[in-house]
Amino acid sequence: MITVNVDLGDRAYPIHIGPGLIDNTACFAPHIVGSSIAIVTNTTVEPLYAERLRLALAPLGKKISTVVLPDGESYKHWETLNLIFDHLLLERADRKTTLIALGGGVVGDMTGFAAACYMRGVPFIQVPTTLLSQVDSSVGGKTGINHPHGKNMIGAFYQPQAVIADTSTLRSLPPRELAAGLAEVIKTGLIADADFFDWIEAHIDALYGCDEAALIHAVRASCEIKARVVATDEREGGLRAILNFGHTFGHAIEAGLGYGEWLHGEAVGCGMVMAADLSVREGLLDGPARERITRVIEAAHLPLQAPDLGEARYIDLMSVDKKAEAGAVKFILLDGLGRAKITGVADAQVRATLAASTRH
Amino acid sequence: MITVNVDLGDRAYPIHIGPGLIDNTACFAPHIVGSSIAIVTNTTVEPLYAERLRLALAPLGKKISTVVLPDGESYKHWETLNLIFDHLLLERADRKTTLIALGGGVVGDMTGFAAACYMRGVPFIQVPTTLLSQVDSSVGGKTGINHPHGKNMIGAFYQPQAVIADTSTLRSLPPRELAAGLAEVIKTGLIADADFFDWIEAHIDALYGCDEAALIHAVRASCEIKARVVATDEREGGLRAILNFGHTFGHAIEAGLGYGEWLHGEAVGCGMVMAADLSVREGLLDGPARERITRVIEAAHLPLQAPDLGEARYIDLMSVDKKAEAGAVKFILLDGLGRAKITGVADAQVRATLAASTRH
Repeated sequence: MITVNVDLGDRAYPIHIGPGLIDNTACFAPHIVGSSIAIVTNTTVEPLYAERLRLALAPLGKKISTVVLPDGESYKHWETLNLIFDHLLLERADRKTTLIALGGGVVGDMTGFAAACYMRGVPFIQVPTTLLSQVDSSVGGKTGINHPHGKNMIGAFYQPQAVIADTSTLRSLPPRELAAGLAEVIKTGLIADADFFDWIEAHIDALYGCDEAALIHAVRASCEIKARVVATDEREGGLRAILNFGHTFGHAIEAGLGYGEWLHGEAVGCGMVMAADLSVREGLLDGPARERITRVIEAAHLPLQAPDLGEARYIDLMSVDKKAEAGAVKFILLDGLGRAKITGVADAQVRATLAASTRH
Repeated sequence: MITVNVDLGDRAYPIHIGPGLIDNTACFAPHIVGSSIAIVTNTTVEPLYAERLRLALAPLGKKISTVVLPDGESYKHWETLNLIFDHLLLERADRKTTLIALGGGVVGDMTGFAAACYMRGVPFIQVPTTLLSQVDSSVGGKTGINHPHGKNMIGAFYQPQAVIADTSTLRSLPPRELAAGLAEVIKTGLIADADFFDWIEAHIDALYGCDEAALIHAVRASCEIKARVVATDEREGGLRAILNFGHTFGHAIEAGLGYGEWLHGEAVGCGMVMAADLSVREGLLDGPARERITRVIEAAHLPLQAPDLGEARYIDLMSVDKKAEAGAVKFILLDGLGRAKITGVADAQVRATLAASTRH
């Protein structure tokens, strides 16, 4: 078992990474203080792992209940969140009840937000079962739900007590979801660590082939890099925004197609190709680097071409992005491989990238 | 103008108290950083004060929009909160948009919670226009909404940039609402400052008669005491819970009758009589002190007798109180006038207080 510590002062927490951790009672024990536990999961993950998790928790002698949500980004809204609140109130959950998020990013985001809001804050533990959630949503404390007018528009910064990333669960992932997770792994290398990007480039086939050693390394390195960025800037005042590389375009794709049509990681994969293109147009990145990025994203079986939503719709969708301020959209671009830069960009350049990247 | 500082480190903020502050541009100016402002108010307060507030803000040169919510505790739920989110998204509010809560406690709690959650946190200013919200909900950062199974069950601790308490607005309050606010003033004296309770006892008629000098003193002293308690214990780990004196019974009354039937302050007024009775039964308070408390609450035109919900229903409602833990309800009792104590109480004593306090 490997442990990455996310250093956030009195909100610091460990990420444990390794095979079979879901069965490891000792891994959970130090992080559960109250007398009851509510496991939050979804209809897909529940039959795979809920019983194993309950067995691992049983020796702790706590009251354990489970709430099962519908599966999918399209359910990441208030009504589903309210199922968690209904459950907690019916179970008489108190201020020390620990919520355990068992599932992917959607379950993690909603459980974390429910934990942030229930009685103004109860403890929670993340047990991410997808690559995307192990490398991305498990670090940084971003929680929330979607609004019809924007993704993750309603939420909170709220840190878990611990993240327990069982890499064995990744074997149950459909290839499309594995690829979506690889998008965030690639992103992490691109924005902050050129050596890690080189390593990804050399191991992309092993990663897509679900090689466990390669996956453990990728999860660990991604979490370490992200933890470093988040520790510097917990509430996204500045640096942390670089983690949104590929997300401005990506969010527009997701919102434009309707959430759930493309997976988040697929939209980010394509969004990174677009952001790399924009970086070249701005003179920050050279053509061969963009080509390497495109080839790695392609090898991860992620989409390279954006859906044709129309230029006006893209511009409109991007202007409500959370990074926008007083109507001006800021982009995260690559200032060479392994280095990100946040900057405003002339509209004409954005339009050129949209024209070059869109499937017609 | 009097200023009380709430000392919460990097979340510290001032409470400005005085007549006519709603028209005072300079009072607002230092606390608004972004380029837009969203005023959140309700159908009752909007015609009274919204235009004056907009006139005061106009010289700041910001984009100003207003969202008007239905008035009343019965609307303090997700659907109304979502009206704020809809408005913010339609207005393209960004991460620096300042929300201004113009109204009483319900508007303040919902606006604060909306500010806590919109894009995971935007700045907000409270302009409380009721006595209850000036002395109570404006200090301490408690925000939230009700759930059908419990009051304020969904929320966040989130501090405003500033509170601007215009005491002239109290003249527009219906007497019943003024009385409800006096309940929290009385509570503050009872739990933390016997001298202040003596002062309240001597000035209760002036306060109920809306004497401005008396009201200013009461708001200032209440905010100072509450700010001291909250600064010691921002997230209600211990001491802060004493601010809930009268609230365990009070919340049960509100929930049992249906929110909105009794005003919050009315329920707290009656709840304090009940908690004083329980304090006597526990040997913590003497009979004459209980009598003084009852007389002051009566002089504030607050109810002294609890509605007859039935003993079982009271016990049931109190067991989901946020102060409950592992099913055991804790009570805040008076250990003499001006001093509170948090303690478990034998069921028989609680039943005796219910029997003695209920209207049959």
